[in-house]
Amino acid sequence: MDVIAPVADMRAWSRQQLTAGRRIAFVPTMGALHRGHISLIEKARTLADAVVVSIYVNPTQFDNPEDLAKYPKTLEADLAMCREAGAAAVWTPETAEMYPDGYCTFVEVVGPLSDKLCAVARPGHFRGVCTVVTKLLAVVRPDVAVFGQKDLQQALIVSRMAGDLNLGTEIVVAPTVRDPDGLAMSSRNRRLSPESRAKALGLPRGLELARQAYRAGQVTSMKLIEIVAEELLVHEGVDIDYCDVVSLKGFAEAEHADDACVLAAAVFVDGVRLIDHVPLAGHAIPVKVD
Amino acid sequence: MDVIAPVADMRAWSRQQLTAGRRIAFVPTMGALHRGHISLIEKARTLADAVVVSIYVNPTQFDNPEDLAKYPKTLEADLAMCREAGAAAVWTPETAEMYPDGYCTFVEVVGPLSDKLCAVARPGHFRGVCTVVTKLLAVVRPDVAVFGQKDLQQALIVSRMAGDLNLGTEIVVAPTVRDPDGLAMSSRNRRLSPESRAKALGLPRGLELARQAYRAGQVTSMKLIEIVAEELLVHEGVDIDYCDVVSLKGFAEAEHADDACVLAAAVFVDGVRLIDHVPLAGHAIPVKVD
Repeated sequence: MDVIAPVADMRAWSRQQLTAGRRIAFVPTMGALHRGHISLIEKARTLADAVVVSIYVNPTQFDNPEDLAKYPKTLEADLAMCREAGAAAVWTPETAEMYPDGYCTFVEVVGPLSDKLCAVARPGHFRGVCTVVTKLLAVVRPDVAVFGQKDLQQALIVSRMAGDLNLGTEIVVAPTVRDPDGLAMSSRNRRLSPESRAKALGLPRGLELARQAYRAGQVTSMKLIEIVAEELLVHEGVDIDYCDVVSLKGFAEAEHADDACVLAAAVFVDGVRLIDHVPLAGHAIPVKVD
Repeated sequence: MDVIAPVADMRAWSRQQLTAGRRIAFVPTMGALHRGHISLIEKARTLADAVVVSIYVNPTQFDNPEDLAKYPKTLEADLAMCREAGAAAVWTPETAEMYPDGYCTFVEVVGPLSDKLCAVARPGHFRGVCTVVTKLLAVVRPDVAVFGQKDLQQALIVSRMAGDLNLGTEIVVAPTVRDPDGLAMSSRNRRLSPESRAKALGLPRGLELARQAYRAGQVTSMKLIEIVAEELLVHEGVDIDYCDVVSLKGFAEAEHADDACVLAAAVFVDGVRLIDHVPLAGHAIPVKVD
């Protein structure tokens, strides 16, 4: 497995693959890898001849400097996991090269995809994501890139952006991976104490209870949202950032839920921000429901 | 010479060049080609194995729908000129494919490069330019792209953008080409009557007189600007959009001119918008000066 830092070296590596007629699949990450990332690498291996993983904590997508500073860094373990998972190359770009002095170019998706949920809570976040993903794709030039469904809004925005800008990369979205207790895997979970984690389980449990209520005939979005809130707000130290029913048709908030809707939520658990969602017509989330 | 319309065909054409180890140079145009464009194609031929010319009147860079509607279209003559100049391929993308329903992604350069001159006069113009150039470069994937110096601010913004986004294309800026009377070549010149053209010559003449005044020791920007204004405002039907001394160091307006400065102006001549500039330490503009 090649470990590459300079932009020019990564570009040359990809060009070599291309001239050899090999397809590249790309998995962009911010490191602190867990089984969710590994599932993306495994998916990527089925789609191309060579998998490139990037590990880069992109500063322009953090609206909160404290969140950036606290973002876990575990490079040696990450590299071992990438090697184990069969990545052909890992790219670890440097911020001095990614955002040199005077950097001033940004990519933005406007409209319904970018005016709700995480976009409201984290101003500038998706602009930072779109900008760095454009840069990463421009250097790696993959045939396909794999994103996790847990970050649903990000996956939808990046898909739209890659198509709109004709980047030549197909965006594939792979399913959320969960721990046995139902919590969606996230690098941020490392920051949860056992007590905080117990509170955080209210998120997948609330989503699953709401999904069950929808299947039983409850289509009033406000009622579904209340079910999630009741699972979470019983705990001290838990704040709901947002909880909304959003239709994937037009990405609009829906007063009445239907099969095209997802229930999506972001919560702070003892200061750690977690997101999760459930497609109302989708599979059950494997949580313990009393 | 290949004439290509679909994005997928253009992408496949470029990929074939790449796998054959051939360098691509790219000249993006809006058609209505003149000798200025031909000089860009000739420059491009010296830089690569194959030259691609795009002909596309990009709607997102027009702030004024009337200007878009009136933009001259001369496709058959353009193709003949490209063939004559030795282009390997001409790409004529369709708006339905470039900006499909729901299109919502934009690229923007922020800061000093984008807060003065044409950026003020034409809100959204450079956002449209950056967006379409990103798209064109993503499809053609050239090693180098050639832009004309007449559109100085555009050339500076596109250079910055291509570097910032790691697009992998070197941006080369080729000199302004002028008619024997000194008027900078522009597709918009076709819309000038002989009377309007006579008035328009006040632009290069004013710039040249100001350059001479600077060489003779006049460094007060306001005085240099007055020289340009005096050559133009003697005519009815001429309005100055802007006329400014701008330093290429930091792209800041300069109260006192120095060798790093350009004098740049945009004027409306009987409703036709023309731009031009002169580097104060540069060569003379070949105009008739009484």
